[in-house]
Amino acid sequence: MKIDGTPFRAIWVDETDHWSVRIIDQTKLPWALDLPRLSSMEEVAHAIRAMLVRGAPLVGAAASYGVALAMRAAASDANLAHAGRQLGATRPTAINLRWALARCQEKLAPLKPGARVAAAYAQAAEICDEDVATNKAIGKHGLDLIEARATGSRRVNILTHCNAGWIATVDWGTALAPIYMAHDKGINVHVWVEETRPRNQGASLTAWELGKHGVPHTVIADNAGGHLMQRGEVDLVIVGTDRVTRSGDVANKIGTYLKALAARDNGVPFWVALPSSTIDWAISDGLSDIPIEERAQTEVTTMTGRALDGSIATIRIVPKDSPAANPAFDVTPARLISGLITERGLCAANEFALSALFSKEAK
Amino acid sequence: MKIDGTPFRAIWVDETDHWSVRIIDQTKLPWALDLPRLSSMEEVAHAIRAMLVRGAPLVGAAASYGVALAMRAAASDANLAHAGRQLGATRPTAINLRWALARCQEKLAPLKPGARVAAAYAQAAEICDEDVATNKAIGKHGLDLIEARATGSRRVNILTHCNAGWIATVDWGTALAPIYMAHDKGINVHVWVEETRPRNQGASLTAWELGKHGVPHTVIADNAGGHLMQRGEVDLVIVGTDRVTRSGDVANKIGTYLKALAARDNGVPFWVALPSSTIDWAISDGLSDIPIEERAQTEVTTMTGRALDGSIATIRIVPKDSPAANPAFDVTPARLISGLITERGLCAANEFALSALFSKEAK
Repeated sequence: MKIDGTPFRAIWVDETDHWSVRIIDQTKLPWALDLPRLSSMEEVAHAIRAMLVRGAPLVGAAASYGVALAMRAAASDANLAHAGRQLGATRPTAINLRWALARCQEKLAPLKPGARVAAAYAQAAEICDEDVATNKAIGKHGLDLIEARATGSRRVNILTHCNAGWIATVDWGTALAPIYMAHDKGINVHVWVEETRPRNQGASLTAWELGKHGVPHTVIADNAGGHLMQRGEVDLVIVGTDRVTRSGDVANKIGTYLKALAARDNGVPFWVALPSSTIDWAISDGLSDIPIEERAQTEVTTMTGRALDGSIATIRIVPKDSPAANPAFDVTPARLISGLITERGLCAANEFALSALFSKEAK
Repeated sequence: MKIDGTPFRAIWVDETDHWSVRIIDQTKLPWALDLPRLSSMEEVAHAIRAMLVRGAPLVGAAASYGVALAMRAAASDANLAHAGRQLGATRPTAINLRWALARCQEKLAPLKPGARVAAAYAQAAEICDEDVATNKAIGKHGLDLIEARATGSRRVNILTHCNAGWIATVDWGTALAPIYMAHDKGINVHVWVEETRPRNQGASLTAWELGKHGVPHTVIADNAGGHLMQRGEVDLVIVGTDRVTRSGDVANKIGTYLKALAARDNGVPFWVALPSSTIDWAISDGLSDIPIEERAQTEVTTMTGRALDGSIATIRIVPKDSPAANPAFDVTPARLISGLITERGLCAANEFALSALFSKEAK
């Protein structure tokens, strides 16, 4: 998508500079647009570990370029295995990461070392292009939902939680893809951006990328989403997801469940956008089968932002002796979900509909 | 209640210093215990507007002292009316403010100017003492709910939103009064304190006052409340309220409605603690009849806390070109409320039950 009028992807290769890999340092957003150059597998591993790149699809893409950089350094069997281990250890829970690395290994291992560098770059580019194509397809299917609510110049208000935008992927995003398409098509869309405590991905990332592309939006406290639905100010909710069970239960950023409850109570459609790689066909009951990561207390007790003097500062917002708890995700039961937006089309959140759309994957 | 062993009320008169009014500056909590001296009606109005004092009962008490200070300046009919208008305009949603001011007007208007100063102070003191007695009664009735869930040494987990503690009242609090009583009685209570964005009254005030009294508690992002209920980690929700309609609809801090939805979805009792002065008998439908205050965008876009160097700093957490919306309250429909904890006893959230308990007030 665009940053101040210039088209970007979230990761790309600079062929003019030793085929190094460029990314947007997302730890600096929204305060600075820093585009570090990654020249080695080790630099890619650091960028993933320190969350300069985040978002499951983007992490997978970055890892595949990490393998390519490793092959540039030494295309031996030993280094291919080493790169897989090093990159695979950066975010041990990310499914896309292991999927992308396995794909690289399968492609490169049978090749002679001399053929591996070109093949690794081609493989990484393919993973990126596939991600873009998947997200575009999600965007087109989701666009139908928005168009159905756009009569004349009426403003369509869409609420989203966390960041499932283009910077969480290679381009387009998942939950935001339909919104970018609607906006680019001239539909009067406006996005309620929930700040998404405690890590503030909505306030710092979603607001930034929507603003840079020129999509009208308003940041709200997570607490305000239900009230806006009660007042008829939300036409549609679209969120992303980290894992979907075969029965359609959805794990997503903490607080998603509360918005699904409010949407149902107010008759607001609640949709979840996802690439089908997010579906975990091995599990069914989201509440019992999806482990919920408990993250550091400091994410709740402190907050980082821009001080009056322009510097980036971290402040404490909880009394020093008060402990905090920080579950990072929650599970929204399928019964609260209007439907899923996948690259193959819209789909009800239940096993029957999912299995019909993905008959091979569902087995 | 106590701060570091010293008993406090949230507002008091310093008779040795021109009968000025002392308060705890709650905008400085939890970082500093600052006790400003208010010497004029204008200073009281500012303290209410800028939320140095906040919480419906405390705002009512402060306003009554504002009238007393106005009478000290000039006890004329004109100034009495002027004080009522000025103080009444400070906060739009709280019913206690108008109730306290009406009571002052009724008491003082028939009096000769010369008798008004003493009567105004007496009236304000009476409002304060009544508030303490009311909150103690609320605490005793609410204690029954907690005791019913305390078997042996089992921990009773209570979730609360915002601050309806002793510093939101003259003493004891409303939602926290039963918790203080249970804790003092040796019951193993633990409080999930929602941070309560955007003003963080939970993280900065509720955590502070519970900590100072020694009540075990854990601060969570507002987003986490539903997840904890899904996991069986919440036995009871108790919140305060700014206004209750005759049908039992409840206006409270933004985000309360979301917790009521989650409580119903998980079979968790959801109780609202209130002095009966909070009931607005003139209205029935909370969603259509209660005006919701829209507060400054900066409450969403910035955050204040303690920097690493110990100073109090404000940081921006939203991109500079992104607008924000900030509705301060929402309305929880009576259908989602297990019951009301009033000074006269527990009561279902409906017109029949409320009218039976408050037959005179309900007319």
